[in-house]
Amino acid sequence: MAAEIESIENILEKHIPAAELDEVARLLYGKKLRILPLPQKALDDARQRNFEIKAYGFDAAKESTRSARIVRVGAIQNKIILPTTAPVQEQRESLEKRICEIIEVAAGCGVNIICLQEAWNMPFAFCTREKQPWCEFAETVESGPTTALMKELARKYNMVIVSPILERDENHGDILANTAVVISNTGEVIGKSRKNHIPRVGDFNESTYYLEGDTGHPVFQTQFGRIAINICYGRHHPPNWMMYGVNGAEIVFNPSATVGALSEPLWPIEARNAAIANSYFTCGINRVGSEEFPNEFTSADGKPAHKDFGHFYGSSYFAGPDGSRTPGLSRTRDGLIISEMDLNLCRQVKDKWGFRMTQRLDLYAEELAEAVKPDYKPHIIKEK
Amino acid sequence: MAAEIESIENILEKHIPAAELDEVARLLYGKKLRILPLPQKALDDARQRNFEIKAYGFDAAKESTRSARIVRVGAIQNKIILPTTAPVQEQRESLEKRICEIIEVAAGCGVNIICLQEAWNMPFAFCTREKQPWCEFAETVESGPTTALMKELARKYNMVIVSPILERDENHGDILANTAVVISNTGEVIGKSRKNHIPRVGDFNESTYYLEGDTGHPVFQTQFGRIAINICYGRHHPPNWMMYGVNGAEIVFNPSATVGALSEPLWPIEARNAAIANSYFTCGINRVGSEEFPNEFTSADGKPAHKDFGHFYGSSYFAGPDGSRTPGLSRTRDGLIISEMDLNLCRQVKDKWGFRMTQRLDLYAEELAEAVKPDYKPHIIKEK
Repeated sequence: MAAEIESIENILEKHIPAAELDEVARLLYGKKLRILPLPQKALDDARQRNFEIKAYGFDAAKESTRSARIVRVGAIQNKIILPTTAPVQEQRESLEKRICEIIEVAAGCGVNIICLQEAWNMPFAFCTREKQPWCEFAETVESGPTTALMKELARKYNMVIVSPILERDENHGDILANTAVVISNTGEVIGKSRKNHIPRVGDFNESTYYLEGDTGHPVFQTQFGRIAINICYGRHHPPNWMMYGVNGAEIVFNPSATVGALSEPLWPIEARNAAIANSYFTCGINRVGSEEFPNEFTSADGKPAHKDFGHFYGSSYFAGPDGSRTPGLSRTRDGLIISEMDLNLCRQVKDKWGFRMTQRLDLYAEELAEAVKPDYKPHIIKEK
Repeated sequence: MAAEIESIENILEKHIPAAELDEVARLLYGKKLRILPLPQKALDDARQRNFEIKAYGFDAAKESTRSARIVRVGAIQNKIILPTTAPVQEQRESLEKRICEIIEVAAGCGVNIICLQEAWNMPFAFCTREKQPWCEFAETVESGPTTALMKELARKYNMVIVSPILERDENHGDILANTAVVISNTGEVIGKSRKNHIPRVGDFNESTYYLEGDTGHPVFQTQFGRIAINICYGRHHPPNWMMYGVNGAEIVFNPSATVGALSEPLWPIEARNAAIANSYFTCGINRVGSEEFPNEFTSADGKPAHKDFGHFYGSSYFAGPDGSRTPGLSRTRDGLIISEMDLNLCRQVKDKWGFRMTQRLDLYAEELAEAVKPDYKPHIIKEK
């Protein structure tokens, strides 16, 4: 198998002459973003700790009646550390340690809000369809060890932390859920948001573990801005993105776990389209590396049983409401991507493009109410 | 002003070595499409008539209980011919002549369904906000000269023609509408579909001429497949794309007229995202060139009055339900792009990815019904 390429941006920059690169970049990435300078210590620490760090600025026009609302937002992509055969607690602690050292660097860069990848404190074991030991990674939002640690970091660094975990809901019959916990910079849990759309695709029938989320489309009012979380497979569903916008989100994270052969050409399209359509910022976060499991499993694709799900391709990125986007993080390395954004850009783009005003939600409310009826007849016009 | 580049694909192919180009193409364009060989006469005619011609094949797996449903679909992008000061009838006839010579070539390539660009038989004069003489380009669907000509061509070439025009609705108070007329290969009008979302952006407040369409989301059952038309600005609205899918569309055209500074980085994202999210084929069609009007007009952007709206960047393309897409047509030349597609791919992708099954339309019907109420309170969670 050929080595994985590091990133498409590296290839473009290596080969395309500067005179043409600007126009290629405009067509592929939109308006040129500002490169955000970072403290030397952060760069040094990232090098020593072996993760990539990239930072960009999304600017907005100055307004005379509103101050700029500048916020620094980070996202982390990472590999697992220990083999999946190590004891559950050791696996989790190794990931906690790794995330602590990356978040420390983010804090040094002035990050106000950070989001981790989907089910970040465990291997993405749902492809195995085995229950043990993977269910042991689940913990309650209120009293689990991961939330406790994240609360501590949030308080220490005055940072909002979005921590997507496998949730054990003891108040509802011990069921599992795929849940993002939102922790305030004060160290308190603001609330949680569950994965709304559950894949049944190839290796992943995650409904073996948990079903469609029942938390709706909550938006969390933090001190730094209004955020929401669309977990993984929900990115394929435009109405899911839309409802977070309807509820007033300014930044929507998409913590994910997805592999190359399956979804990679879709990856740069979906979160960016959502940013455009809903006039907010989005951030796609994907884990990186490959994960080998102790027992072999099949993928319902006619291929032999295997122990490795595939290559998680990272490529985490931010997209802005004006259609601009950052380059992606590496396809192969741990990384921290930071965006400084003026949240005023959301309303400025709404005023410019008018998508919300012209959205005709009343029409779609009516049409959908009809479409879900069992006897719905699709509106098909045939030749007379 | 620098010369417009011809296409991003030209630049990538010129500079990136073959060893890396395949991976770049996979990341940017998805699964490699088949190059479709065309008759030599078609290639020669296209060269003589000075338009670009490109053709690709989207393949599907062979099924044992359904035959392949192969259809050839075409899209045409073109400049205006005469100055906008020429008499209305001459302008229209010059465009009709041009389209006739391109459609003749499409017929020689075996095209079954073809779609023209938005308001193809006129300059895109709506940026001027003037009523005369532009309203004179409007015609009724049933008895206008353009529909009459398209019916003749449809019958002659056994081709379904989608003809987007400025409609004059004599049965409803002589109002105007931005309308796609769908003409069967038998030469009869099957029906019409109006632009659902009307821009009020910069140069374009098209509601000066016509309002939001009232034809809903019809899908037209043709002999070659089920098609729908999402006109121009409707591509920014994911629920608009979605309803055509809910009604069973297999191919959705997006005839457009849009210029570089405004929308170009959005262009490759939106129709492609719709193809992915709705498991159907899409085709974005954009006119090409620039159009100068007799009187100057302003664009509400603080810049001086001007007579030229900007550069329509062409770049028409097809996208498939599996996330693959064709390269775009030229940014500067007239062109015909053809895709041979097996429509079975739509259901195959639905079965694989399961987006329709996991779509939760009932949830969105309920949430939207709430969201449109005047006293709706967005679902915002604050720190206690």
